[in-house]
Amino acid sequence: MQPIGVIRSSYREAKETPIQGVFSGNAEAHVELKPEYAVGLKDLDGFSHAILIYHFHTSESEKLVGKPYLENEEHGIFAIQSPHRPNHIGLSVVRIMRIEANRLYFSEVDILDGTPLLDIKPYVKQFDSREDAVSGWIERHFENGQQPQGVVVQ
Amino acid sequence: MQPIGVIRSSYREAKETPIQGVFSGNAEAHVELKPEYAVGLKDLDGFSHAILIYHFHTSESEKLVGKPYLENEEHGIFAIQSPHRPNHIGLSVVRIMRIEANRLYFSEVDILDGTPLLDIKPYVKQFDSREDAVSGWIERHFENGQQPQGVVVQ
Repeated sequence: MQPIGVIRSSYREAKETPIQGVFSGNAEAHVELKPEYAVGLKDLDGFSHAILIYHFHTSESEKLVGKPYLENEEHGIFAIQSPHRPNHIGLSVVRIMRIEANRLYFSEVDILDGTPLLDIKPYVKQFDSREDAVSGWIERHFENGQQPQGVVVQ
Repeated sequence: MQPIGVIRSSYREAKETPIQGVFSGNAEAHVELKPEYAVGLKDLDGFSHAILIYHFHTSESEKLVGKPYLENEEHGIFAIQSPHRPNHIGLSVVRIMRIEANRLYFSEVDILDGTPLLDIKPYVKQFDSREDAVSGWIERHFENGQQPQGVVVQ
């Protein structure tokens, strides 16, 4: 696999990166695609959201269980979003702001500056949204309308 | 990147694979993780859905624009879900049925038998669901309550 571009954001360190893009407010970032891939962005501007798949390039370890930022209990790596996972693949749902040539500007940012991008997929509400989903150990952090705050441990 | 396991489904050919798992009815499949990764599944059974990231291993070409199954118009590869994309990365949201040792059984299947698995992430409704998303060229295929039927072009 080869990077198809790089992500440019204002987050230079994991400790200042939001735990999820939906909590990042109005922060804006962009994907800088390699110019030869720009044609692949055709019609993506009709979508409100995209899924970015990228390489957690700052993680050098692999842990099969871990404590997520939100709590002190250990969970399996496939039940959390830690970067210290096999293959170090990251995934973020982002809000598309605009596309200019080989640049995709987006908000709802939770990605470190300099992150190598592997793929962009359109977010298709009819396929990717599951309002009825049950979110395991995370649910209790949203009980009674509360919203977790803070930064991710990368 | 190395496969962490393999996906076992009843779909042996692309032409019999549903365009999206949400349309696949009660078909069941499973992930067979390499045994050493089984511990990473801890607590994933508390989630109703997972995101599988895998390698479109049958695709040998890369096309930056393509016609999706649903229509005759060409769109950029990053605005469609074709396997003929840079890095050949596939993504499916699936419904978790049960977990037994190193096996994750799931429904909402749209993945070919024998597909190499790269990652499993928990589907977190609070982060990954976007009921208000606008889905570009796909929207008109869902107008007036219609639902596209058929198989994917892989």
